[in-house]
Amino acid sequence: MWRTNVLYRVDGLFYFCRNKIKHKMNNQITVIAFDADDTLWVNEPYFREAEEQFAALLTDYLPRDNSVSALYKTEIANLPLYGYGIKGFILSMIESVLRITHGKTDPAIIQKVIDLGHEMLNKPVELLEGVEDALKALHGKFRLVVATKGDLLDQQRKLTKSGLDHYFHHIEVMSDKQEKDYQKLIKHLDCKPEEFLMVGNSLKSDVLPVLAIGGNAVHIPFHTTWVHEHIDHTIAHPNFYQMENLSEVLLKLIK
Amino acid sequence: MWRTNVLYRVDGLFYFCRNKIKHKMNNQITVIAFDADDTLWVNEPYFREAEEQFAALLTDYLPRDNSVSALYKTEIANLPLYGYGIKGFILSMIESVLRITHGKTDPAIIQKVIDLGHEMLNKPVELLEGVEDALKALHGKFRLVVATKGDLLDQQRKLTKSGLDHYFHHIEVMSDKQEKDYQKLIKHLDCKPEEFLMVGNSLKSDVLPVLAIGGNAVHIPFHTTWVHEHIDHTIAHPNFYQMENLSEVLLKLIK
Repeated sequence: MWRTNVLYRVDGLFYFCRNKIKHKMNNQITVIAFDADDTLWVNEPYFREAEEQFAALLTDYLPRDNSVSALYKTEIANLPLYGYGIKGFILSMIESVLRITHGKTDPAIIQKVIDLGHEMLNKPVELLEGVEDALKALHGKFRLVVATKGDLLDQQRKLTKSGLDHYFHHIEVMSDKQEKDYQKLIKHLDCKPEEFLMVGNSLKSDVLPVLAIGGNAVHIPFHTTWVHEHIDHTIAHPNFYQMENLSEVLLKLIK
Repeated sequence: MWRTNVLYRVDGLFYFCRNKIKHKMNNQITVIAFDADDTLWVNEPYFREAEEQFAALLTDYLPRDNSVSALYKTEIANLPLYGYGIKGFILSMIESVLRITHGKTDPAIIQKVIDLGHEMLNKPVELLEGVEDALKALHGKFRLVVATKGDLLDQQRKLTKSGLDHYFHHIEVMSDKQEKDYQKLIKHLDCKPEEFLMVGNSLKSDVLPVLAIGGNAVHIPFHTTWVHEHIDHTIAHPNFYQMENLSEVLLKLIK
């Protein structure tokens, strides 16, 4: 089903997305890049769980909401230095613990944060519905790549664990997903922007910068989105497609 | 000058390398991949400095050598989980501090380790001799890429800081440099192994796996090599070239 003028809710915020009905997908597309976390497999809920466990370690010092907000501030301050991914998240949790406990930290809390990080890195990969069938049908007809932020080894490991790696030409772990990063990616893939389609769950990271450089983008929302990825935006663009799952991408592309 | 049957010393170990004199370089080469750390710019000495500062924080608990050796053990144990790079190194230092101090850690030590990590991430980039001239001459004649281990954002930042980024088609940050990783890289670059030349300072990471998959490799030793990268090996292979600096690579390739 094609959405048109849809108002939808993601994690407490409302987005309004418009898409022309029966809007034909650009038939020049040769490369499809898929975001990984919360597009191919579950990710954000694991971060939110870890955040709750982090706050629970600090209830003697701060109420839950203040700990979560202190952690978020540290994460954002560290982004330019650490980039995205679990290792930077663990370091930000440790830095937040030191700050919240004013140098009177129980070392056992630091150890628990490290254990929490190890658990996150060892989580199983839970595929989202319809992912494998869609990739199977698109494979061989398009060059398929994974284009994701995060820690290199962690994302490669998740791709291997997912059992999806044979569908992809390669995985591109990106330090950020801004226009310049997509320009580099497209140069690197030796394709033209109009031949490039990005599929992902973040309007901010997977859609807007791709449209801005002349590419095509499909947005498939996920129920949980990190506040850093939120935008309050209405998108109406000829190269933009709002869909509910990967099966819709498939139908639109190979019909 | 071409080395032939050369015995050389790297960081306390002796390597013996043989190279046929006037051995012609394969003229099918179209892609040259350069290792970054200690091939394009200084890196390992910064890790060794950090190791000394780490050990100095723990002199009340352990002699210097024991702290360094405990850190190395933690790093190696964490490699499958964290991969290469500074973020994993900081986390390994923190874990080692907790272990060495038996849960009686002064939180100030953890803070100093984090500060040490931030300093490492903010180090200036010091190019090795002849690097820029060689890249200038090779640029346009070959597809040049950077193929390095380490943290994605950190390596991209170093490349930007180096001012060398415009010489390269792209930077490939690899989670490891084993045969399968080079096979993926070559597939990704859409070239044949015989068209691929790797230039680097590590026989273990930059030379042996590349030769094993049918590629070409140049070894340029650096004065300091991490013990994990040491091999005790004699290399005699038609696609192997032992050189002293990047100017030699240049002379051999564009003559």
